[in-house]
Amino acid sequence: MIIDCHGHFTTAPAALGQWREQQITAFNDGMQAPRPSALQISDDEIRLAIEPWQLKFLHERGSDMILFSPIASHMGHSVGDEAVSRVWSQVANDLVHRACRLYPQHLAPVCQLPQSPGASPAGCIEELRRCVEDLGFVGCNLNPDPSGGFWRDPPITDPWWYPLYEEMVRLDVPAMIHVSGSCLHCVHTTGAHYLHGDTTAFMQMLTSDLFDRFPTLRFVIPHGGGAIPYHWGRYRGIAQDMGRDIDELLSNVFFDTCVYHSNGLEMLLKTIPSKNILFASEMLGAVRGVNPDTGHYYDDTKYYFDELDMLDPKDAQLIFEDNVRAIYPRLNAHLDALT
Amino acid sequence: MIIDCHGHFTTAPAALGQWREQQITAFNDGMQAPRPSALQISDDEIRLAIEPWQLKFLHERGSDMILFSPIASHMGHSVGDEAVSRVWSQVANDLVHRACRLYPQHLAPVCQLPQSPGASPAGCIEELRRCVEDLGFVGCNLNPDPSGGFWRDPPITDPWWYPLYEEMVRLDVPAMIHVSGSCLHCVHTTGAHYLHGDTTAFMQMLTSDLFDRFPTLRFVIPHGGGAIPYHWGRYRGIAQDMGRDIDELLSNVFFDTCVYHSNGLEMLLKTIPSKNILFASEMLGAVRGVNPDTGHYYDDTKYYFDELDMLDPKDAQLIFEDNVRAIYPRLNAHLDALT
Repeated sequence: MIIDCHGHFTTAPAALGQWREQQITAFNDGMQAPRPSALQISDDEIRLAIEPWQLKFLHERGSDMILFSPIASHMGHSVGDEAVSRVWSQVANDLVHRACRLYPQHLAPVCQLPQSPGASPAGCIEELRRCVEDLGFVGCNLNPDPSGGFWRDPPITDPWWYPLYEEMVRLDVPAMIHVSGSCLHCVHTTGAHYLHGDTTAFMQMLTSDLFDRFPTLRFVIPHGGGAIPYHWGRYRGIAQDMGRDIDELLSNVFFDTCVYHSNGLEMLLKTIPSKNILFASEMLGAVRGVNPDTGHYYDDTKYYFDELDMLDPKDAQLIFEDNVRAIYPRLNAHLDALT
Repeated sequence: MIIDCHGHFTTAPAALGQWREQQITAFNDGMQAPRPSALQISDDEIRLAIEPWQLKFLHERGSDMILFSPIASHMGHSVGDEAVSRVWSQVANDLVHRACRLYPQHLAPVCQLPQSPGASPAGCIEELRRCVEDLGFVGCNLNPDPSGGFWRDPPITDPWWYPLYEEMVRLDVPAMIHVSGSCLHCVHTTGAHYLHGDTTAFMQMLTSDLFDRFPTLRFVIPHGGGAIPYHWGRYRGIAQDMGRDIDELLSNVFFDTCVYHSNGLEMLLKTIPSKNILFASEMLGAVRGVNPDTGHYYDDTKYYFDELDMLDPKDAQLIFEDNVRAIYPRLNAHLDALT
């Protein structure tokens, strides 16, 4: 079985974005916000938004399942306030939940959290619990910088975040570290801000004792781990200079394979232990085109595995299926319910 | 000949840092700043600061020369104002100049620029001209974010920067893209901010037509190009989605080899054409220790080349010598003057 741990509902029906626009406009103008029930999307519209895209690519590429979450760049934690973020998260998560209910054999839900700059992460617990316990979500996306580039909140290793971590541990769900859109004109969202979020969050972990306190807390760093695996020697050396061992993080930190060329993937596979790598493509994400040299979509990361042909069956089994089941254990219940 | 394009005077005598502290304190307290002449460092102190460090490592590792610039994290463009930055740059550059005069066969000078948030880059022209025309500097370091993480100034592709680029073109000197210390508590300087500066600057170039206007302008992106080569497929795909060809940047953009493990260097060498790669170690920089697995310093990047043994002599000649001579053409005059 091949499970892609990183997909977003980037093809959601336009009505979702229109609802969100109305919500933001209402907040900015001090008007009554639209009700969640004002968003009307039929099951057929959801099918039409997914079948020609994520499901088509899933089948074409020979994968089986996607961990499916709301559009990352539209989480927009920096917009509005905590109340706005709470309602928007419910709306976005509910739509993902409906999509996953339509295709439970192919989509398992991952939620966004109602983060907001300056608001305690404890405020996310209710929505996390609703998603996981009531709706069967298997994990969440956690934004290490709700301010969208200003890094105004404490680092993710600060006690500020502990209440949320306690609930994640209790529910036994991991978080994918994922920023939302960049609020800085100079910093491109998918080309710079995303990778910076990944890299910075890892560096925060490397300079803290977070996992001593939360030994079962698990974070997935997407986009191939940002700059981290490429600079593994740098991080290993920085850790050593601090009297630490970088390998200690590997009980709690995992990297996905959203790297869109085979040289990059090869480096990742050579550098990071297989038990810490999760197959992923981020489809449909930052890159939509076909590589003219190969005839394959850039985000067809399965193709790079085939091209490299360097994994033994045991490592492949870890990367394509076993790791994601171990890190997102609620996925097993989701899969068991299908049979 | 083996030329390291990226070294900083991180071992400068303590008096330099003390002078800088006095300058900052005076600025903050509205007092008279110390005069540059108040900084007293003898030639012997400079020798003692360099011989047991950069020169020792240079010889041990079989390299010949370093392009030598002031301490990057201490450029501190976000501190004080434009006048403070101007005097500090003169002081820091003058010390680098003296060091290079003592060891002209091993050190060639690269200057910092007196940037300041909100101040026009045109204000850097006078110091750049002084360094290059009067003191024989061969290039400069350009900070794409003088605000230290807030990215408050226009992107480096904006006309805001053109006056400085016109002077760089006239003088025929390149710039290494290099941020200074992070002003954000959450963002580690050498583990996140540096790589983010590299990545973000490249992404700015990829979304602009800067090099149509300045076809001979040259930028070196340090730290192995930040996250760029690892995500080359991502950037190639993003460029393609915009109707552009990423390879067009390769007439103007170059990457150094400050990657501290052989898997990372191998990926860089496989991904980026040899004509766009410059040997470098960033010694003494972010990582000071010895890798216990190899017995070599992490920043002994020459060792990774030896370990990989994958370059043919022509490519090695480009990476170790010819590229840096072509990109920093004033280095040829520096070297010719030695014979």
